[in-house]
Amino acid sequence: MTAVQTEPYSDSVGIVQRQYLTWTEPLRLESGAMLGSVTLAYETYGRLNESRDNAILLLHALSGDAHAAGRHSLTDRKPGWWDAMVGPGKPFDTDRYYVICSNVIGGCQGSTGPATHDPLSAKPYGARFPLITIGDMVRAQIRLIDALGIEQLHAVAGGSMGGFQALEWITAAPERVRGAILLATAARSSPQTIAWGSIGRRAIMQDPNWRGGDYYGHEAPINGLAVARMIGHVTYLSESSLEQRFARRLQHPGGPAFSLEAEFAVESYLNYQGDSFNDRFDANSYLYITKAMDYWDLPARYGSLEAAMARVRARLLALSFSSDWLYPPAESQAIVATARWVGRIAHHIELPSNAGHDAFLVDIDAQRPLVRAFLSELR
Amino acid sequence: MTAVQTEPYSDSVGIVQRQYLTWTEPLRLESGAMLGSVTLAYETYGRLNESRDNAILLLHALSGDAHAAGRHSLTDRKPGWWDAMVGPGKPFDTDRYYVICSNVIGGCQGSTGPATHDPLSAKPYGARFPLITIGDMVRAQIRLIDALGIEQLHAVAGGSMGGFQALEWITAAPERVRGAILLATAARSSPQTIAWGSIGRRAIMQDPNWRGGDYYGHEAPINGLAVARMIGHVTYLSESSLEQRFARRLQHPGGPAFSLEAEFAVESYLNYQGDSFNDRFDANSYLYITKAMDYWDLPARYGSLEAAMARVRARLLALSFSSDWLYPPAESQAIVATARWVGRIAHHIELPSNAGHDAFLVDIDAQRPLVRAFLSELR
Repeated sequence: MTAVQTEPYSDSVGIVQRQYLTWTEPLRLESGAMLGSVTLAYETYGRLNESRDNAILLLHALSGDAHAAGRHSLTDRKPGWWDAMVGPGKPFDTDRYYVICSNVIGGCQGSTGPATHDPLSAKPYGARFPLITIGDMVRAQIRLIDALGIEQLHAVAGGSMGGFQALEWITAAPERVRGAILLATAARSSPQTIAWGSIGRRAIMQDPNWRGGDYYGHEAPINGLAVARMIGHVTYLSESSLEQRFARRLQHPGGPAFSLEAEFAVESYLNYQGDSFNDRFDANSYLYITKAMDYWDLPARYGSLEAAMARVRARLLALSFSSDWLYPPAESQAIVATARWVGRIAHHIELPSNAGHDAFLVDIDAQRPLVRAFLSELR
Repeated sequence: MTAVQTEPYSDSVGIVQRQYLTWTEPLRLESGAMLGSVTLAYETYGRLNESRDNAILLLHALSGDAHAAGRHSLTDRKPGWWDAMVGPGKPFDTDRYYVICSNVIGGCQGSTGPATHDPLSAKPYGARFPLITIGDMVRAQIRLIDALGIEQLHAVAGGSMGGFQALEWITAAPERVRGAILLATAARSSPQTIAWGSIGRRAIMQDPNWRGGDYYGHEAPINGLAVARMIGHVTYLSESSLEQRFARRLQHPGGPAFSLEAEFAVESYLNYQGDSFNDRFDANSYLYITKAMDYWDLPARYGSLEAAMARVRARLLALSFSSDWLYPPAESQAIVATARWVGRIAHHIELPSNAGHDAFLVDIDAQRPLVRAFLSELR
């Protein structure tokens, strides 16, 4: 028996800047609609080498953004969302790789989304923003990779909805990716995930402050978004992690207050998570991005998962987490087994974890050596 | 191999009437508050025998009521909620047993609850109704059983929150029950079930129509209650039953509409379930009853599950359902294993089922012979 070694944490990419690229040429969306003037917000870490073949594109999940690593200023309370994995000597090693992360279209952290001013009306799109899909997100990213002069990505990597985009990349633009890291993800949204998203959207859209999507300049539908986020949050945690962290602990010791307000620690935790989400997320983006997740169905696109995987040229590493009930290990297993069946090089590792779906962001130690080795062995 | 035999369904207790008993003597609640003038709505099926020892008390779940079997009029579209199990020749055999079911206090189907007029103010209690517990529900039921002149119940039986009450009966009034049938239940509410209940309550209480609970005579918080019910509904179904019933079927064929409205069949199903729940349930009762469920913690009451089970005199039959993730089989297993450890006669059977938590109400065929045999062998 050896003790588990954890790598010392260092916030080592330092101060980073958000960058923007805008294309005035409209983007044709999967729905048939045209999205005029598309801006992508993105960040990069490390340097593109001369042969332009060391780029890795990180793909964020529902509530993520382009800020994957480092800090925007010295006073930032927290670094980017994947900082533990990105930096000199880290698995996404910025001494070796040029690491890119962009905010998805439909998002609310600098890329074109429902809060953006519609160039035609000069007011925010709101609910007039066209519906988008995972395919649309990736088509916008392809423009970015083109603009950066990158022919082929060393790898794409993402968890949850980030994994959807990674799967889209390797099937829609197979020649442009050498390796794909798929974390806690699935080849299609299940009816249960559609159900949770749908209930969250209803909570937002029935909030009187939603105003049909035209709430900019007014109070936002903060109560609706809080409920949507709370539902999501429970699906990201496992039963046993809730048990470990909260059990039946009361918020105030000394027995229950017998009131309709929150009594248990788990309740106030969720209320806090729901309310504070409003500080960093736009309710309309929540609607559009969860819709894009609902539409995600890779097998349907190509007729079968087998046909989809037959398109892939990249090597695959899929990591799943034993207690993830939102995107259970069986989903990753199906992707990898099918890829191998059609002759692709693919591996699936189910990591034991108590952290539920959140494990892909928090159980970093087990992922580090696997991601590092996979990236080193590509090409 | 033999084909599965299903018993022919017959709605055989016929036309039944809801009855009422009112006690003007206040009920002291677990919180210390007094509830003045308590009414219980109840129904009975079959006849109490001369020795008054053939009574079975059925205990309903969150959204249930006293109407367990038969119809209130010839034009009723549906019989009572457990009609498949109650009637002549059925497992709760009304030729042998006197079967009783009452609406819980806090409920909205005739028993005293938040919609009842407060005798002091002559207007509905609303959010001034005192918080109640599972123990309080059972203390009110004990008054009913006393009033019916029944010393000892042949059995108590219930699923989900009905199982909580059954567990309360056999520990709080152990001498008064010979057997207990516990379906899809648990000895305490887990943090995850508290979380779901809490999010549903927040959806109700932030609905502007909730008006601090004083919405009677105005439009009810129908949107909030719909969201609460939709959350609950997803927790009652298994992932695989959603897959079987809905998969990714679109509501309207011919491809997605690419709109923010519901697109998938599972979404419109849930919206319907949420909206129609308003026709039969009061939002304030939803708040109070889910709170009572949150407080449910039998081990805490007596110091341990072992100490609680040591109080039991009744025989136990616990049935759980393999795909129930709200009250998983392990919860029933813990109750029965502990009861046996302290020398009680108890059996747990995990039934294979695809129906999730709902199985206790819908997978009746597997339950019939087990319930029938258990009831026959008591005393």
